[in-house]
Amino acid sequence: MFKGVIAIDQIYMKRAIELAKKGEGYVNPNPLVGAVIVKDGKIIGEGFHRGYGKNHAEVDAFESLIESPIGATIYVNLEPCSHFGKTPPCANRIVAEGIKRVVIAMKDPNPLVSGNGIKILKENNIDVTVGVLEEEATKLNEIFIKYITTGIPFFIVKTAMTLDGKIASYTGDSKWITGELAREKVHKIRHRMSGIMVGIGTVLKDNPSLTTRLNMKDTMDPHRIIVDTSCRIPLDSKVLNLDSKSKTIIVTTENASDGKIKRIKDKGAEVIILPKVNGKVDLKALAIKLGEMKIDSVLIEGGSSLNYSAFDAQIVDKVMAFIAPKIIGGVEAKTPVGGDGIKLIKDSINISCLEATKIGDDILIEGYVRKD
Amino acid sequence: MFKGVIAIDQIYMKRAIELAKKGEGYVNPNPLVGAVIVKDGKIIGEGFHRGYGKNHAEVDAFESLIESPIGATIYVNLEPCSHFGKTPPCANRIVAEGIKRVVIAMKDPNPLVSGNGIKILKENNIDVTVGVLEEEATKLNEIFIKYITTGIPFFIVKTAMTLDGKIASYTGDSKWITGELAREKVHKIRHRMSGIMVGIGTVLKDNPSLTTRLNMKDTMDPHRIIVDTSCRIPLDSKVLNLDSKSKTIIVTTENASDGKIKRIKDKGAEVIILPKVNGKVDLKALAIKLGEMKIDSVLIEGGSSLNYSAFDAQIVDKVMAFIAPKIIGGVEAKTPVGGDGIKLIKDSINISCLEATKIGDDILIEGYVRKD
Repeated sequence: MFKGVIAIDQIYMKRAIELAKKGEGYVNPNPLVGAVIVKDGKIIGEGFHRGYGKNHAEVDAFESLIESPIGATIYVNLEPCSHFGKTPPCANRIVAEGIKRVVIAMKDPNPLVSGNGIKILKENNIDVTVGVLEEEATKLNEIFIKYITTGIPFFIVKTAMTLDGKIASYTGDSKWITGELAREKVHKIRHRMSGIMVGIGTVLKDNPSLTTRLNMKDTMDPHRIIVDTSCRIPLDSKVLNLDSKSKTIIVTTENASDGKIKRIKDKGAEVIILPKVNGKVDLKALAIKLGEMKIDSVLIEGGSSLNYSAFDAQIVDKVMAFIAPKIIGGVEAKTPVGGDGIKLIKDSINISCLEATKIGDDILIEGYVRKD
Repeated sequence: MFKGVIAIDQIYMKRAIELAKKGEGYVNPNPLVGAVIVKDGKIIGEGFHRGYGKNHAEVDAFESLIESPIGATIYVNLEPCSHFGKTPPCANRIVAEGIKRVVIAMKDPNPLVSGNGIKILKENNIDVTVGVLEEEATKLNEIFIKYITTGIPFFIVKTAMTLDGKIASYTGDSKWITGELAREKVHKIRHRMSGIMVGIGTVLKDNPSLTTRLNMKDTMDPHRIIVDTSCRIPLDSKVLNLDSKSKTIIVTTENASDGKIKRIKDKGAEVIILPKVNGKVDLKALAIKLGEMKIDSVLIEGGSSLNYSAFDAQIVDKVMAFIAPKIIGGVEAKTPVGGDGIKLIKDSINISCLEATKIGDDILIEGYVRKD
């Protein structure tokens, strides 16, 4: 009997998580949340947080009701809020609607409010279950959890290499390492992130536009962040001449001349000036700065030099490594992570929870940087 | 009804393939074969080819019978032989035993005899089904199929790299990239192969013994093949001072002095002298030579230089790439495949049928070199 309840709870929570994912790319820096209202074994309402500033998932679900929610159960992947923000507290709304039971995947990770929503529900004699599909829910909101608890963006390093570890041939040719499906997947990841970061080397070599290209309505471009210690970016670079709602941010140091900074600003881009570490932009300081700018997540698609600097600065949370079924060879060919490197294997950066998925002909390996 | 027959055939063929695998490492250059004899829905005998020169699988199965095989069905993953070799033909034995039906996974790949066994069976009014689990059976005997049809060994390149494509740190440290389970898996692969090949660079750097270390009785060491263009191998190298039933083969060129060759032979090793291509041992000529020596399979565990030469010489059939959950960085750190490299990505060597398997904390990616 008990097992049966668990199984049913998981089914509806899975649906709530599915709904939550529909908000990917639109809600940052808010969490992804979905809600399902169930009465007498039937879904009578469902919703999700559709975008920053829009209704919370619970409210979206209440607005979709096809019958009275009195006595119903609501499934929501994140603890209902208890504070008056852009909308009234969802916990109070749940009480007011006459809900009898609330099933929650995970508590609010924000230490300032965690548990408060559950407290309101319990004080109003609502039956509360916490922890259903908690692992999935935690992964779903990995960006939100990092950002709300630290104020620092969640950084993903994305690489694409051959089966022998190269991101380009010895001549620098890199078109295309991975196949179409993998490249489409990268655009989906970009869409989900608030920022995308490359080094000036990539801009000089490839002149990318760093936009999200997907066959979807209202795709959001992430902010384009160019790490450019000496402000070498050409004024005719694509990233400085785009028609995009999101910003281009040039991150530089005292090496930059006032004239160049002014000309970049005249193009409509932002310029951030930061201290140097080992002659390059201090990426730890940049992480803090981007967090202050409400950028909750950054995809690093750097060349091997920026990637190494990011690992070295310990700002990386997650790695997404695409591996293509190709052998290219070449001692001079570049690898995903360059720089000075770490001296001994035993001191290397460890990645945990490694997963491998086939995407077209390529393989995507994902894991988290272990910070222990 | 028809579907039911197929499913039952597959179950017994799966068992035959399982049995065949027990011969791994012992039968080369013979094929891996297993046989299951079934009567009235019951297995009444089973066997496999246990080692080179020993009984064929069918005979091994007949010798295990617990009741009369008259009217029974025999499942065997390879077409029964039709020729008088070390043992009388299995096809005739099957007829003599009164078997009613023979289920075969794949025809004999040897063009000289392919179909002859089936012909004998059919001429004796035995019902023959061919092609059950053919794909699995083909993979099982990938070594035998290559060797019997070409006389050239089946070459596997095995690599172990970090998630950022390095086989060592910039200082050359490589202990250990992969975890224990992956290293044990490598010993299992070695056990299955007739030869293991490294470059002289690996001998000078690591002084490996290249033996198979497994907790098994009667593990077979593969022959150790050292590619050493200028015959630089130190006489006190482990591979020249082993207590092992298999051979150490030093492959060199006219660069080698007669004195050094004599001293190596005095150590009990064999020396092969081959022409040079681009200043290095001609690996295509080596492949032919090893085939003549009845070596049907070679595991290349070279450094990046030998690996590139092997791909460049187009002798590689399969790639087994272990990927460890580590980031080490370093522009100077070596990658699995070095050498000059290929100029453009579009001309890279393509790998097909890519599979990814988790082995402990590591991921093993396997694929075949596409020769089209």
